[in-house]
Amino acid sequence: MKPKLAAPLETTHWFNTDGPITLDALRGKVVLIEAFQMLCPGCVSHGLPLANRVFETFSRDDVAVIGLHTVFEHHEAQGGNAALEAFLHEYKIRFPVGVDAPSPNGGPPKTMRAYNLQGTPSLLLIDREGRLRKQTFGLERDLILGAEIMSLMREGAGATFDERAPDPHAAGCDDAACAIPNAQP
Amino acid sequence: MKPKLAAPLETTHWFNTDGPITLDALRGKVVLIEAFQMLCPGCVSHGLPLANRVFETFSRDDVAVIGLHTVFEHHEAQGGNAALEAFLHEYKIRFPVGVDAPSPNGGPPKTMRAYNLQGTPSLLLIDREGRLRKQTFGLERDLILGAEIMSLMREGAGATFDERAPDPHAAGCDDAACAIPNAQP
Amino acid sequence: MKPKLAAPLETTHWFNTDGPITLDALRGKVVLIEAFQMLCPGCVSHGLPLANRVFETFSRDDVAVIGLHTVFEHHEAQGGNAALEAFLHEYKIRFPVGVDAPSPNGGPPKTMRAYNLQGTPSLLLIDREGRLRKQTFGLERDLILGAEIMSLMREGAGATFDERAPDPHAAGCDDAACAIPNAQP
Amino acid sequence: MKPKLAAPLETTHWFNTDGPITLDALRGKVVLIEAFQMLCPGCVSHGLPLANRVFETFSRDDVAVIGLHTVFEHHEAQGGNAALEAFLHEYKIRFPVGVDAPSPNGGPPKTMRAYNLQGTPSLLLIDREGRLRKQTFGLERDLILGAEIMSLMREGAGATFDERAPDPHAAGCDDAACAIPNAQP
Repeated sequence: MKPKLAAPLETTHWFNTDGPITLDALRGKVVLIEAFQMLCPGCVSHGLPLANRVFETFSRDDVAVIGLHTVFEHHEAQGGNAALEAFLHEYKIRFPVGVDAPSPNGGPPKTMRAYNLQGTPSLLLIDREGRLRKQTFGLERDLILGAEIMSLMREGAGATFDERAPDPHAAGCDDAACAIPNAQP
Repeated sequence: MKPKLAAPLETTHWFNTDGPITLDALRGKVVLIEAFQMLCPGCVSHGLPLANRVFETFSRDDVAVIGLHTVFEHHEAQGGNAALEAFLHEYKIRFPVGVDAPSPNGGPPKTMRAYNLQGTPSLLLIDREGRLRKQTFGLERDLILGAEIMSLMREGAGATFDERAPDPHAAGCDDAACAIPNAQP
Repeated sequence: MKPKLAAPLETTHWFNTDGPITLDALRGKVVLIEAFQMLCPGCVSHGLPLANRVFETFSRDDVAVIGLHTVFEHHEAQGGNAALEAFLHEYKIRFPVGVDAPSPNGGPPKTMRAYNLQGTPSLLLIDREGRLRKQTFGLERDLILGAEIMSLMREGAGATFDERAPDPHAAGCDDAACAIPNAQP
Repeated sequence: MKPKLAAPLETTHWFNTDGPITLDALRGKVVLIEAFQMLCPGCVSHGLPLANRVFETFSRDDVAVIGLHTVFEHHEAQGGNAALEAFLHEYKIRFPVGVDAPSPNGGPPKTMRAYNLQGTPSLLLIDREGRLRKQTFGLERDLILGAEIMSLMREGAGATFDERAPDPHAAGCDDAACAIPNAQP
């Protein structure tokens, strides 16, 4: 099955960005969308920290990370922008976050419906040409996601990402490593 | 600086394989070498579990994972093959593990010297053409390593890896996720 | 310094209980009060899980666990009872939770002021005679808290708590243990 | 069933102490014995760290912590004192550790047999009068163990333990806590 163009984002508000973000404007980058709810325990403990690691690891010229607040339950508790703003502040979420537009008759919001997401956290990967290439619900492993993002990056031109500086270690063992005395880094 | 051919492995014994393994014989695959000592806490808690995740995640046609027991201290305690065999058994290490050949005058063993490793755990990444492309000492993050392995895989032909099956979830929230009632997976 | 009677709880609403709870009514039990805010990351990851372990471990005849929602920031986001109710539901908090009464001029709410709490999570331990015996802000270790609760329990009559059933293990090692073949539990 | 006197330790060697330790000499203290093997993953990840937390938390006038190396498998790999010494050094085990005396006909060593231990890690708690009060195999929870140790401590005179210093926090939220601006610690 050939991958199809990812459905457009239908949103009512954005945080951590100057204006609304569209997938069209991100064409040329790999895009990771993390769909979450602020009162979803798995989003707080797994999904959002993973999205943040992606945001901190890859070059922003190559990979865009977007959060999507897809409220499908507890609308009265999670539906307000003030609550989401406080949540993003306290959990130190720095990437842009859009609020999925409510559906006229309730239930899952519009973008969530367009992708037929099963719940939160869900993760979407979109390639440089705007096509949906992966969609998962629930836990996602860093090793696999790192490989998938790089695979999509390599389909285009660039494939660079920020390198961590090597950890300096003194001689002897600590929790992380055992160092040879007088080894030259 | 152009990457150079990785130095050959100098070993005295192998586990989890029928015979000695050479880098030449692995030409065409991406090779991850995890240098460790059985009494190194950071190897037990981080390095070896990471190597095992790589071993379980990527296709063995594309990525070879090798352990290298590089004893540079406590030789009397870690130097015996019986001890290492018991260790590999109890920690369920299934990938091939070679024993780095002792240096004639003591200190770090031969392969460890050839790569000028600073200690354990150290991780080496070798490309499909046998060239050393990355060498790190200490903690390594899954997201970055996954991307680097895929980048090396994509330099050759294939770039496939095993997909996890999607996690089935019932409606409601658990620790990992919140599911929409009656969503169709 | 002699311990003083703990200040009374000043609350506007309660969850997970039929009616308001007073410290007077709990006289005779050791009382743990976990002061938290629903948008406080340390409360979600440390404070509330610890309170829950206490709730699940000790006999409810001897130890009462109470949550206290002490909103001192983001009032508009955290101040509503609907939001707190959804939070308690999703995070599976089963012990009684009271909403600390807002102060007339804003800032920390009334009970929080009475105890001069520095922030959230904070933990209060009250003895069987209603006296405040411990007050901490931030991380708390299980081993110490278990000892302190038992110390207060032993000041009165009973000192029983639920025992875990022993873990059954097959022969061989798993992540948790190595079993002797054919050992008789 | 009345608790019985704990069986004497039968050992061949001791580390981290000037001479052999007997339970008789510890009469008056609560004694925790952690039975372990150096190649037992659950001992390395759970049992020994827990014993170490007990060693660091409680007053050594009240609570004695002892390790017991009970090798019942891989004797050739784990049986040597040099290996154990290196292990204790690398894993930073500071409390006294005795080597359980081998049984003449092989199998579990003598002390392990005397207590009928099912495997490793196993934990023994002995009261101030030298009676065995608890024996568990496998995972043990800090909250319960803290309560049990304090319960045994309170059967005698003293019941003190080292208090952690309170964590200083600046205003705002970090991973551990949210602080009130200008709160007076």
